[in-house]
Amino acid sequence: MQTPQIRFGSRDSKEAIEEGLVFAPKFDEHGLIPCMALDADTGEPLMLAYMNRDSWEATLQSGKATFWSRSRQKLWLKGESSGHVQIVKEIFIDCDEDTVLLQVEQLGGAACHTGHRSCFFRKRTGGDFTVVGEKVFDPKEVYK
Amino acid sequence: MQTPQIRFGSRDSKEAIEEGLVFAPKFDEHGLIPCMALDADTGEPLMLAYMNRDSWEATLQSGKATFWSRSRQKLWLKGESSGHVQIVKEIFIDCDEDTVLLQVEQLGGAACHTGHRSCFFRKRTGGDFTVVGEKVFDPKEVYK
Repeated sequence: MQTPQIRFGSRDSKEAIEEGLVFAPKFDEHGLIPCMALDADTGEPLMLAYMNRDSWEATLQSGKATFWSRSRQKLWLKGESSGHVQIVKEIFIDCDEDTVLLQVEQLGGAACHTGHRSCFFRKRTGGDFTVVGEKVFDPKEVYK
Repeated sequence: MQTPQIRFGSRDSKEAIEEGLVFAPKFDEHGLIPCMALDADTGEPLMLAYMNRDSWEATLQSGKATFWSRSRQKLWLKGESSGHVQIVKEIFIDCDEDTVLLQVEQLGGAACHTGHRSCFFRKRTGGDFTVVGEKVFDPKEVYK
Protein backbone atom coordinates (compact mmCIF):
# COMPACT_ATOMS: atom_id res chain seq x y z
CA MET A 1 0.00 0.00 0.00
CA GLN A 2 1.11 3.53 -0.73
CA THR A 3 1.51 6.16 1.94
CA PRO A 4 -2.03 6.97 2.96
CA GLN A 5 -3.63 10.33 2.52
CA ILE A 6 -6.49 10.20 4.98
CA ARG A 7 -9.45 12.40 4.23
CA PHE A 8 -13.17 11.92 3.91
CA GLY A 9 -15.51 12.95 1.11
CA SER A 10 -19.01 14.38 1.05
CA ARG A 11 -22.24 12.47 1.54
CA ASP A 12 -24.31 15.47 0.49
CA SER A 13 -25.91 13.79 -2.51
CA LYS A 14 -26.65 10.37 -3.97
CA GLU A 15 -24.11 11.10 -6.69
CA ALA A 16 -21.42 12.07 -4.17
CA ILE A 17 -21.96 8.76 -2.39
CA GLU A 18 -22.30 6.47 -5.40
CA GLU A 19 -19.76 8.10 -7.68
CA GLY A 20 -17.35 9.79 -5.26
CA LEU A 21 -13.74 8.72 -5.25
CA VAL A 22 -12.91 10.13 -1.82
CA PHE A 23 -14.13 7.76 0.88
CA ALA A 24 -17.28 9.17 2.49
CA PRO A 25 -18.12 6.45 4.98
CA LYS A 26 -21.53 6.07 6.54
CA PHE A 27 -20.71 5.18 10.11
CA ASP A 28 -23.66 3.84 12.09
CA GLU A 29 -25.00 5.31 15.33
CA HIS A 30 -22.08 3.68 17.15
CA GLY A 31 -19.56 5.21 14.77
CA LEU A 32 -18.93 1.86 13.10
CA ILE A 33 -18.88 0.48 9.57
CA PRO A 34 -18.90 -3.26 8.79
CA CYS A 35 -15.78 -4.59 7.15
CA MET A 36 -15.52 -7.88 5.32
CA ALA A 37 -12.10 -9.52 5.01
CA LEU A 38 -11.38 -11.91 2.15
CA ASP A 39 -8.23 -13.86 1.43
CA ALA A 40 -6.40 -11.90 -1.27
CA ASP A 41 -5.07 -15.02 -2.97
CA THR A 42 -8.03 -17.38 -2.87
CA GLY A 43 -10.94 -14.96 -2.48
CA GLU A 44 -12.14 -17.01 0.48
CA PRO A 45 -14.32 -15.03 2.91
CA LEU A 46 -12.53 -14.93 6.27
CA MET A 47 -14.46 -12.75 8.70
CA LEU A 48 -16.62 -9.70 9.23
CA ALA A 49 -15.71 -7.09 11.82
CA TYR A 50 -16.28 -3.38 12.38
CA MET A 51 -14.16 -0.28 11.95
CA ASN A 52 -14.48 3.16 13.42
CA ARG A 53 -12.54 6.21 12.26
CA ASP A 54 -9.56 5.33 14.44
CA SER A 55 -9.38 1.79 13.14
CA TRP A 56 -9.71 2.99 9.54
CA GLU A 57 -6.79 5.34 10.07
CA ALA A 58 -4.76 2.72 11.93
CA THR A 59 -5.38 0.23 9.11
CA LEU A 60 -4.16 2.71 6.50
CA GLN A 61 -1.17 3.74 8.55
CA SER A 62 -0.05 0.24 9.52
CA GLY A 63 -1.21 -1.75 6.49
CA LYS A 64 -2.63 -4.25 8.98
CA ALA A 65 -6.36 -4.83 9.43
CA THR A 66 -7.40 -2.99 12.57
CA PHE A 67 -10.96 -3.13 13.83
CA TRP A 68 -13.01 -1.88 16.74
CA SER A 69 -13.83 -4.62 19.19
CA ARG A 70 -17.47 -4.19 20.15
CA SER A 71 -17.17 -6.69 23.02
CA ARG A 72 -14.03 -5.13 24.49
CA GLN A 73 -14.79 -1.54 23.34
CA LYS A 74 -11.24 -0.96 22.19
CA LEU A 75 -9.12 -0.71 19.09
CA TRP A 76 -8.30 -4.21 17.91
CA LEU A 77 -5.29 -4.97 15.77
CA LYS A 78 -6.49 -8.26 14.30
CA GLY A 79 -3.99 -10.91 15.39
CA GLU A 80 -2.59 -8.92 18.32
CA SER A 81 -3.00 -11.97 20.61
CA SER A 82 -2.70 -14.85 18.16
CA GLY A 83 -0.17 -13.37 15.76
CA HIS A 84 -2.67 -13.99 12.98
CA VAL A 85 -2.32 -10.53 11.56
CA GLN A 86 -3.99 -9.58 8.28
CA ILE A 87 -1.76 -7.71 5.85
CA VAL A 88 -4.02 -5.48 3.77
CA LYS A 89 -3.53 -5.88 0.03
CA GLU A 90 -6.57 -4.08 -1.39
CA ILE A 91 -9.46 -2.04 -0.03
CA PHE A 92 -12.86 -1.71 -1.69
CA ILE A 93 -15.96 0.30 -0.74
CA ASP A 94 -19.52 -0.41 -1.75
CA CYS A 95 -22.05 1.74 -3.58
CA ASP A 96 -23.56 3.26 -0.44
CA GLU A 97 -20.16 3.59 1.26
CA ASP A 98 -21.53 1.79 4.27
CA THR A 99 -19.41 -1.35 3.91
CA VAL A 100 -15.66 -1.83 3.54
CA LEU A 101 -14.07 -4.87 1.95
CA LEU A 102 -10.46 -5.85 2.56
CA GLN A 103 -8.40 -8.31 0.59
CA VAL A 104 -5.77 -9.54 3.01
CA GLU A 105 -2.84 -11.86 3.41
CA GLN A 106 -3.85 -13.92 6.43
CA LEU A 107 -0.77 -14.68 8.52
CA GLY A 108 -0.82 -17.96 10.46
CA GLY A 109 -3.27 -19.46 7.99
CA ALA A 110 -6.36 -18.82 10.13
CA ALA A 111 -8.61 -15.85 10.75
CA CYS A 112 -10.97 -17.33 13.33
CA HIS A 113 -10.36 -17.38 17.08
CA THR A 114 -11.90 -20.89 17.12
CA GLY A 115 -8.92 -22.11 15.11
CA HIS A 116 -10.72 -22.39 11.81
CA ARG A 117 -9.24 -20.87 8.70
CA SER A 118 -12.41 -18.83 8.15
CA CYS A 119 -15.02 -17.65 10.64
CA PHE A 120 -17.60 -19.00 8.17
CA PHE A 121 -16.90 -22.64 8.98
CA ARG A 122 -20.53 -23.79 9.30
CA LYS A 123 -22.73 -24.39 6.28
CA ARG A 124 -26.46 -24.96 6.20
CA THR A 125 -27.31 -28.53 5.30
CA GLY A 126 -30.98 -29.39 5.39
CA GLY A 127 -32.50 -27.59 8.35
CA ASP A 128 -29.37 -27.06 10.42
CA PHE A 129 -25.67 -26.44 10.02
CA THR A 130 -22.61 -28.64 9.56
CA VAL A 131 -18.99 -27.80 10.28
CA VAL A 132 -17.28 -27.74 6.90
CA GLY A 133 -14.36 -25.38 7.55
CA GLU A 134 -10.81 -26.44 8.15
CA LYS A 135 -9.48 -26.18 11.70
CA VAL A 136 -5.91 -24.97 11.51
CA PHE A 137 -4.94 -24.51 15.15
CA ASP A 138 -6.00 -25.35 18.69
CA PRO A 139 -7.20 -22.17 20.43
CA LYS A 140 -5.94 -23.50 23.77
CA GLU A 141 -2.42 -23.53 22.38
CA VAL A 142 -2.62 -20.10 20.75
CA TYR A 143 -4.51 -18.07 23.39
CA LYS A 144 -2.72 -18.83 26.65
CA MET B 1 -32.03 -26.12 -1.13
CA GLN B 2 -33.98 -28.64 0.88
CA THR B 3 -37.30 -27.84 2.52
CA PRO B 4 -36.38 -25.57 5.39
CA GLN B 5 -36.95 -26.42 8.99
CA ILE B 6 -36.87 -23.04 10.63
CA ARG B 7 -35.87 -22.96 14.27
CA PHE B 8 -33.34 -21.10 16.33
CA GLY B 9 -30.74 -22.43 18.74
CA SER B 10 -29.49 -21.25 22.10
CA ARG B 11 -27.02 -18.45 22.73
CA ASP B 12 -26.73 -19.38 26.40
CA SER B 13 -23.02 -20.15 26.30
CA LYS B 14 -19.89 -19.51 24.26
CA GLU B 15 -19.92 -23.18 23.26
CA ALA B 16 -23.55 -23.03 22.14
CA ILE B 17 -22.71 -20.09 19.92
CA GLU B 18 -19.38 -21.26 18.54
CA GLU B 19 -20.15 -24.95 18.21
CA GLY B 20 -23.94 -25.04 17.81
CA LEU B 21 -25.41 -26.47 14.65
CA VAL B 22 -28.84 -24.87 15.04
CA PHE B 23 -28.69 -21.24 13.92
CA ALA B 24 -28.70 -18.97 16.96
CA PRO B 25 -28.46 -15.56 15.37
CA LYS B 26 -27.38 -12.46 17.21
CA PHE B 27 -29.69 -9.82 15.86
CA ASP B 28 -28.64 -6.28 16.69
CA GLU B 29 -30.76 -3.72 18.55
CA HIS B 30 -32.73 -3.17 15.34
CA GLY B 31 -33.40 -6.89 14.94
CA LEU B 32 -30.92 -7.14 12.07
CA ILE B 33 -27.94 -9.28 11.14
CA PRO B 34 -25.50 -8.38 8.35
CA CYS B 35 -25.48 -10.70 5.39
CA MET B 36 -22.75 -10.89 2.79
CA ALA B 37 -23.62 -12.23 -0.67
CA LEU B 38 -20.93 -13.80 -2.83
CA ASP B 39 -21.21 -15.20 -6.34
CA ALA B 40 -21.48 -18.98 -5.93
CA ASP B 41 -19.51 -19.70 -9.09
CA THR B 42 -16.72 -17.15 -8.95
CA GLY B 43 -16.59 -16.33 -5.24
CA GLU B 44 -16.79 -12.63 -6.13
CA PRO B 45 -18.17 -10.47 -3.31
CA LEU B 46 -21.39 -8.88 -4.54
CA MET B 47 -23.04 -6.93 -1.73
CA LEU B 48 -23.74 -6.63 1.96
CA ALA B 49 -27.28 -6.18 3.24
CA TYR B 50 -29.23 -6.95 6.41
CA MET B 51 -31.72 -9.61 7.39
CA ASN B 52 -34.28 -9.71 10.16
CA ARG B 53 -36.19 -12.82 11.23
CA ASP B 54 -38.81 -12.34 8.55
CA SER B 55 -36.25 -12.00 5.79
CA TRP B 56 -34.33 -15.04 7.07
CA GLU B 57 -37.51 -17.09 6.93
CA ALA B 58 -38.51 -15.67 3.54
CA THR B 59 -35.04 -16.50 2.18
CA LEU B 60 -35.30 -20.09 3.37
CA GLN B 61 -38.84 -20.50 2.12
CA SER B 62 -38.30 -18.94 -1.30
CA GLY B 63 -34.66 -19.83 -1.93
CA LYS B 64 -34.18 -16.21 -3.00
CA ALA B 65 -32.11 -13.72 -1.03
CA THR B 66 -34.51 -11.54 0.91
CA PHE B 67 -33.27 -8.70 3.07
CA TRP B 68 -34.66 -5.93 5.23
CA SER B 69 -34.40 -2.55 3.59
CA ARG B 70 -33.21 -0.12 6.25
CA SER B 71 -33.96 2.89 4.03
CA ARG B 72 -37.47 1.76 3.12
CA GLN B 73 -38.14 -0.16 6.36
CA LYS B 74 -39.67 -3.09 4.55
CA LEU B 75 -38.97 -6.62 3.49
CA TRP B 76 -36.86 -6.55 0.34
CA LEU B 77 -36.75 -9.40 -2.10
CA LYS B 78 -33.44 -8.59 -3.77
CA GLY B 79 -34.19 -8.00 -7.45
CA GLU B 80 -37.88 -7.28 -6.96
CA SER B 81 -37.59 -4.12 -9.10
CA SER B 82 -34.68 -4.97 -11.38
CA GLY B 83 -35.29 -8.68 -11.82
CA HIS B 84 -31.76 -9.25 -10.55
CA VAL B 85 -32.81 -11.90 -8.08
CA GLN B 86 -30.22 -13.91 -6.13
CA ILE B 87 -30.85 -17.65 -6.06
CA VAL B 88 -29.38 -18.95 -2.81
CA LYS B 89 -27.02 -21.87 -3.28
CA GLU B 90 -25.32 -22.10 0.12
CA ILE B 91 -25.65 -20.40 3.50
CA PHE B 92 -22.84 -20.05 6.03
CA ILE B 93 -22.77 -18.53 9.52
CA ASP B 94 -19.76 -17.19 11.35
CA CYS B 95 -18.26 -18.14 14.71
CA ASP B 96 -20.26 -15.58 16.71
CA GLU B 97 -23.41 -16.17 14.67
CA ASP B 98 -23.69 -12.46 14.08
CA THR B 99 -23.04 -12.57 10.33
CA VAL B 100 -24.62 -14.60 7.54
CA LEU B 101 -22.91 -15.41 4.27
CA LEU B 102 -24.81 -16.40 1.15
CA GLN B 103 -23.41 -17.96 -1.97
CA VAL B 104 -25.82 -17.00 -4.73
CA GLU B 105 -26.51 -17.28 -8.40
CA GLN B 106 -26.86 -13.64 -9.44
CA LEU B 107 -29.55 -13.34 -12.10
CA GLY B 108 -29.10 -10.54 -14.63
CA GLY B 109 -25.36 -10.53 -14.08
CA ALA B 110 -25.35 -7.59 -11.68
CA ALA B 111 -26.03 -7.14 -7.98
CA CYS B 112 -25.64 -3.38 -7.67
CA HIS B 113 -28.38 -0.84 -8.26
CA THR B 114 -25.76 1.40 -9.91
CA GLY B 115 -25.49 -1.17 -12.70
CA HIS B 116 -22.18 -2.62 -11.60
CA ARG B 117 -21.76 -6.35 -11.30
CA SER B 118 -20.68 -5.96 -7.65
CA CYS B 119 -21.46 -3.21 -5.16
CA PHE B 120 -17.72 -3.21 -4.40
CA PHE B 121 -16.76 -1.50 -7.65
CA ARG B 122 -14.37 1.07 -6.17
CA LYS B 123 -10.85 0.17 -5.07
CA ARG B 124 -8.43 2.25 -3.06
CA THR B 125 -5.54 3.45 -5.19
CA GLY B 126 -3.10 5.76 -3.47
CA GLY B 127 -5.11 8.04 -1.22
CA ASP B 128 -8.48 7.79 -2.93
CA PHE B 129 -10.60 5.33 -4.86
CA THR B 130 -10.86 4.29 -8.50
CA VAL B 131 -13.78 2.63 -10.26
CA VAL B 132 -12.58 -0.84 -11.19
CA GLY B 133 -15.84 -2.78 -11.33
CA GLU B 134 -17.66 -3.74 -14.46
CA LYS B 135 -20.86 -1.82 -15.29
CA VAL B 136 -23.34 -4.31 -16.67
CA PHE B 137 -26.49 -2.22 -17.11
CA ASP B 138 -27.78 1.34 -17.21
CA PRO B 139 -29.88 1.99 -14.07
CA LYS B 140 -32.08 4.43 -16.04
CA GLU B 141 -33.11 1.56 -18.30
CA VAL B 142 -33.71 -0.94 -15.50
CA TYR B 143 -35.42 1.21 -12.85
CA LYS B 144 -38.17 3.04 -14.72
